[in-house]
Amino acid sequence: MIIDCHGHYTTAPKQHELWRQQQVEAAAEGRTAPPRPSITDHEIRDSIVNGQLKAQRERGTDATIFSPRAAGMGHHLGEASTSEAWADACNTLIYRVQTLFPGKFIGVCMLPQSPGVSPANCIPELERCVRDYGFVGCNLNPDPSGGYWTDPPLSDRYWYPIYEKLVELDVPAMIHVSLACNPAFHTTGSHYLNGDTTAFMQLMLSDVFKDFPTLKMIIPHGGGAVPFHWGRFRGLALAQRLPELKDGIMRNIFFDTCVYHLPGQELLAKVIPVDNILFASEMIGAVPGIDPATGHHFDDTKRYVDQLDLSDADRAKIYEGNARRVFSRLSAHLDAPQPAGAGH
Amino acid sequence: MIIDCHGHYTTAPKQHELWRQQQVEAAAEGRTAPPRPSITDHEIRDSIVNGQLKAQRERGTDATIFSPRAAGMGHHLGEASTSEAWADACNTLIYRVQTLFPGKFIGVCMLPQSPGVSPANCIPELERCVRDYGFVGCNLNPDPSGGYWTDPPLSDRYWYPIYEKLVELDVPAMIHVSLACNPAFHTTGSHYLNGDTTAFMQLMLSDVFKDFPTLKMIIPHGGGAVPFHWGRFRGLALAQRLPELKDGIMRNIFFDTCVYHLPGQELLAKVIPVDNILFASEMIGAVPGIDPATGHHFDDTKRYVDQLDLSDADRAKIYEGNARRVFSRLSAHLDAPQPAGAGH
Repeated sequence: MIIDCHGHYTTAPKQHELWRQQQVEAAAEGRTAPPRPSITDHEIRDSIVNGQLKAQRERGTDATIFSPRAAGMGHHLGEASTSEAWADACNTLIYRVQTLFPGKFIGVCMLPQSPGVSPANCIPELERCVRDYGFVGCNLNPDPSGGYWTDPPLSDRYWYPIYEKLVELDVPAMIHVSLACNPAFHTTGSHYLNGDTTAFMQLMLSDVFKDFPTLKMIIPHGGGAVPFHWGRFRGLALAQRLPELKDGIMRNIFFDTCVYHLPGQELLAKVIPVDNILFASEMIGAVPGIDPATGHHFDDTKRYVDQLDLSDADRAKIYEGNARRVFSRLSAHLDAPQPAGAGH
Repeated sequence: MIIDCHGHYTTAPKQHELWRQQQVEAAAEGRTAPPRPSITDHEIRDSIVNGQLKAQRERGTDATIFSPRAAGMGHHLGEASTSEAWADACNTLIYRVQTLFPGKFIGVCMLPQSPGVSPANCIPELERCVRDYGFVGCNLNPDPSGGYWTDPPLSDRYWYPIYEKLVELDVPAMIHVSLACNPAFHTTGSHYLNGDTTAFMQLMLSDVFKDFPTLKMIIPHGGGAVPFHWGRFRGLALAQRLPELKDGIMRNIFFDTCVYHLPGQELLAKVIPVDNILFASEMIGAVPGIDPATGHHFDDTKRYVDQLDLSDADRAKIYEGNARRVFSRLSAHLDAPQPAGAGH
């Protein structure tokens, strides 16, 4: 089985994003947001069958861990109540996708974060999504300000209420920033990768995994700059008298394979322990085009992983085993008997 | 000849950094800074002979393009006049190193940047350093705020006065951030790499090199996250109908080899055109320790480059030819007859 641990609902019916615009405008003007739009099962099915499910079939993957559009989270917009209503709308839509395509799309929630607001405010939504919707994880934004980095680092006790709840529910967090509103940053070209590198460094020097030894975090986009600079990070850790990364932080941190060329994937597989790599493509996402050098989609990451010089056992870890282990609630979805013709 | 294009004076006599502390304190209290301390040639010679020159000899490199300590630039501290006095002090010290060790250390200046102050204020110091001191380039900080990224991106005309002067003087800029004062960032672990990735993306989508076709910029630390995510950047460029990176931005952008493990160097040499790679170690810098896996210093980057599967001609480009081409004023230093025993 091939599990893509990182997909977003970038193809949601257009009234969903339109409502978001209206909601943000209303918040800016101190008005109440309009009622949420009607979205039919047919519209949802269409958006998936012609989008992510089509790509799954063409590429030969089996299931996608699926969350709201990352750039769309926009935690810097409005207030905490704005984020709460938007997270509710987005997560409910993910739940509907999960229900319509059982075993093919498994939900991960966004959180109703807001700059300067304790992440404790996210606990009710996280509990609702895991307990009521059966979601298997959440996306945690280390920079709700959208590129000004005004909240405390992930090492700070500010974040501990959400870590406690993640441990209690036994679900991992993917550390994923959202839209950059700071003109210095390009959302998918620099802010995403910077967020990954920044989070790794914050956690590497922290007590977070001493205080929460069973907490698991996924750093997406191949870990940002970290594997390319693995020697730098090893050297910085050893200089702080920390253990080797593989014996320290890598007990709790995992990288995905959202790296859009073969040499990058080769590096990832060479330097990062195989137990710490989870297959992912982030399709349909930042780089949906076709690489003229290969004739295939940049984000068809399965083609790269298939070419890596790995044993079958190691490739199976990357494709399936590690995801089942990190997302401990995932197997209940994947191994449940599926109704005939579900999602078709 | 082996030219290290990226070294900082991290071993400057201690009264230099002590004066900086006094200067910043005075600025904060609205007082005049004390007079600059006396530093003898003997002290400077000592700091180099037992530091960077020792490493040059042990590692078998011949010359270092040398600039003030990057984290020490601290453009966010004080006002523009504070940065002006500090840049003067730092650059004058680099000039003295260059004079004491002719052909071994060649100066690159820091600029007296200050957040929110037009970089046009840096032109007099840049001209002084290139014309009077014979420096071959400058370090340009894309984020004088120290991690809040409050100045316009490098694509903005805000920066054009300094670009015009760089072109007129025919010297390149290394894009290098300084100390992170934002607690989200670790200076050498995330802020440096983020600065590299951010600058690349700002420039990739800009008209800077259309407007300044002969402007050359070096992005240090192997280009941040860029080579590891080369497919992502190629895909983002092609989606914007830009040419392939090698035919577009890479006419003006160069990466150094400050990547502290062999697999990272292998990736760099595999994906980045050989004409765009300049040898560098940033010694004595962020990661001065010894790698227990190899028994050698993490930042002894010559050992990695020596192991790369390259032709002699290509290795010579990385070690020497590219640096002479990018730093067009460099050869005058390297090929000048040196006084016997200089620098010993």
